[in-house]
Amino acid sequence: MNRLITLLTDFGFEDNFVGIIKGVIMQVNPEAITVDISHKVRPHDIFAAAFLLEGAYKYFPKGSIHAVVVDPGVGTERNIILVKTRDYFFIAPDNGVLGLALKNEPVEKIVEVTNSKYFLRDLSCTFHGRDIIAPVAAFLSKGAGLNRFGKEIRYMREIALPPLVREPNRIIGKIIYIDSFGNIITNVKGLDIKGISANLRVKIKDKIIAGLNKSYASVEKNSPLNLINSFGYLEISVNCARAKDFFGVEIGECVELLK
Amino acid sequence: MNRLITLLTDFGFEDNFVGIIKGVIMQVNPEAITVDISHKVRPHDIFAAAFLLEGAYKYFPKGSIHAVVVDPGVGTERNIILVKTRDYFFIAPDNGVLGLALKNEPVEKIVEVTNSKYFLRDLSCTFHGRDIIAPVAAFLSKGAGLNRFGKEIRYMREIALPPLVREPNRIIGKIIYIDSFGNIITNVKGLDIKGISANLRVKIKDKIIAGLNKSYASVEKNSPLNLINSFGYLEISVNCARAKDFFGVEIGECVELLK
Amino acid sequence: MNRLITLLTDFGFEDNFVGIIKGVIMQVNPEAITVDISHKVRPHDIFAAAFLLEGAYKYFPKGSIHAVVVDPGVGTERNIILVKTRDYFFIAPDNGVLGLALKNEPVEKIVEVTNSKYFLRDLSCTFHGRDIIAPVAAFLSKGAGLNRFGKEIRYMREIALPPLVREPNRIIGKIIYIDSFGNIITNVKGLDIKGISANLRVKIKDKIIAGLNKSYASVEKNSPLNLINSFGYLEISVNCARAKDFFGVEIGECVELLK
Repeated sequence: MNRLITLLTDFGFEDNFVGIIKGVIMQVNPEAITVDISHKVRPHDIFAAAFLLEGAYKYFPKGSIHAVVVDPGVGTERNIILVKTRDYFFIAPDNGVLGLALKNEPVEKIVEVTNSKYFLRDLSCTFHGRDIIAPVAAFLSKGAGLNRFGKEIRYMREIALPPLVREPNRIIGKIIYIDSFGNIITNVKGLDIKGISANLRVKIKDKIIAGLNKSYASVEKNSPLNLINSFGYLEISVNCARAKDFFGVEIGECVELLK
Repeated sequence: MNRLITLLTDFGFEDNFVGIIKGVIMQVNPEAITVDISHKVRPHDIFAAAFLLEGAYKYFPKGSIHAVVVDPGVGTERNIILVKTRDYFFIAPDNGVLGLALKNEPVEKIVEVTNSKYFLRDLSCTFHGRDIIAPVAAFLSKGAGLNRFGKEIRYMREIALPPLVREPNRIIGKIIYIDSFGNIITNVKGLDIKGISANLRVKIKDKIIAGLNKSYASVEKNSPLNLINSFGYLEISVNCARAKDFFGVEIGECVELLK
Repeated sequence: MNRLITLLTDFGFEDNFVGIIKGVIMQVNPEAITVDISHKVRPHDIFAAAFLLEGAYKYFPKGSIHAVVVDPGVGTERNIILVKTRDYFFIAPDNGVLGLALKNEPVEKIVEVTNSKYFLRDLSCTFHGRDIIAPVAAFLSKGAGLNRFGKEIRYMREIALPPLVREPNRIIGKIIYIDSFGNIITNVKGLDIKGISANLRVKIKDKIIAGLNKSYASVEKNSPLNLINSFGYLEISVNCARAKDFFGVEIGECVELLK
């Protein structure tokens, strides 16, 4: 049995959408347990959801089912897919949202979810989270085999980190995420700076932050620092303050690693 | 056993109120399972809570107990009521908040909750969600009969959708809710436009939106559209954007269906 | 067995942090049940977390484990401590965050959490909530004895309410918290005004609010009132409106009780 179903959506908490999804799951499998990864993904932001899923999925028990509903194309021709890896199941619209997580997780099977026997009877075109993804995840949590839900397919949409630009005297990276503390997360990973971490200098806007720290409080309050964060990414922070506001940056802007 | 208790409040997440309610429930019935419908109802907004409850309650397993705490009159003479329908239980202040859900759900019994044996001992006048509704819901989830909690009564307060105004060449409706994506929900239901849906023209502010679409992505990005949403209401949306901001409207404003 | 683990953090809901903590707990103990007290503590605000914990902890079943992650010093020399009282367990950084709750709760044992056998293997310096507090709480919920996690210690950091200033003709208190309804909570407790509650006059900014009410709705809408709230604190409110905005006050400002 795979009782645990995680939920990752852009539904927010103002409405009843998340509660309804949990209700549908429990109608199908009263033993299911749901855990929220996040429901505050920026609306329609597939990359942000992919990033949050990548950071979270492997902290859940093996056999967990990860359900993602960030779905700007709901009701159109885009597929809903079910993916099995060695340790987990994933269900999501086929829009790339699984792309970052599945970079690290060999895929064993992809199924296009089409068997309406497992859907809610009155299928809407605007809330497939409720009508398709929730009941399919719940039937899966009761042990239904993947083949029950549709045909196996071989490809799904991909998504990737924006690539680093490597120049002779610098590496150019990008801000890919800003967390709720205002910490700035880049597409630079710990491995990327292996040679230069001792003398690391990160240029962000017109400021240069030198060195690589281990913890936020290793610098004075309100001072900036670089660290490899707990997910393996280069993060630019300000101790006890919001780096985003300190530097005045947004997702998508560049940072430079000076050699 | 009715282990599942849903919670719908205007308590938000900043404070400890929701957690406390769950703690009280689990003290009484460690087997109870709580699911949040929403806690971000606009403070004291009974209609919004009624609307969210109507949309959500029937997606939960039969026997579920729906507890609502949107209660501007807490500590005054207003009653707390327990309602049994064929499939569900409801507990809430008697302020109309159950009115929309119970339009569709034949009521079998209404009880005025007065038996303080089932309340917390130190009863406050400001937090009946904690002191009355949570423990009563939890005792109910353990199988206590409705009569234990107080006397049967025959009436409760009602609430209703604002009525449509039908004129020879138009129907005038109202915006009753705006969801977290900025979608505009009206008091017009699918049935109300049965004859005219093919040629539907909706006037909102000074703009006219023609046609009835099935999904958000069936129009260009940032283009407006009409659809019957997944709860059966006429919704005015903008693909991948916030219709509320696009049109600059608020709850309570009128929309016109031109014939 | 102590299956119930409460969580109180400043992580917010935008990111995946809270979900990850729950995943780690369930990897260690699939039978654990987590309940959120709040995740919207103002970032790094140890006092606010202490206040929310004090109000909430005792509404949970005996044996519950209260895990707090408000931890501006994460990754520095500060300890993580495990505290056993007669009825509960607490785990938190040793930064005073348990101080208000433990004023009322005789401490039986304090342990400095050092045994890395119970930590995640790849220990970060920035997310001890995931790497230490979550797994330790989960092993504790499976019945592991306190001694397994580290050595007993005798002291932990304290925190206290700001003291009242008692003058001949007035008591000067402070605003210590403002809840999500905008209600103003002070450091004055019910006992502090026992002699004067009949003639209570509270001065806040330049306004004087007279009397002590029992419920919000006992005054007209948009009128201010004093009450002893459901946690025993003097609260200044405005019926159906935000007292914070009505008076234009912030946490830390003074209020005067005139005699």
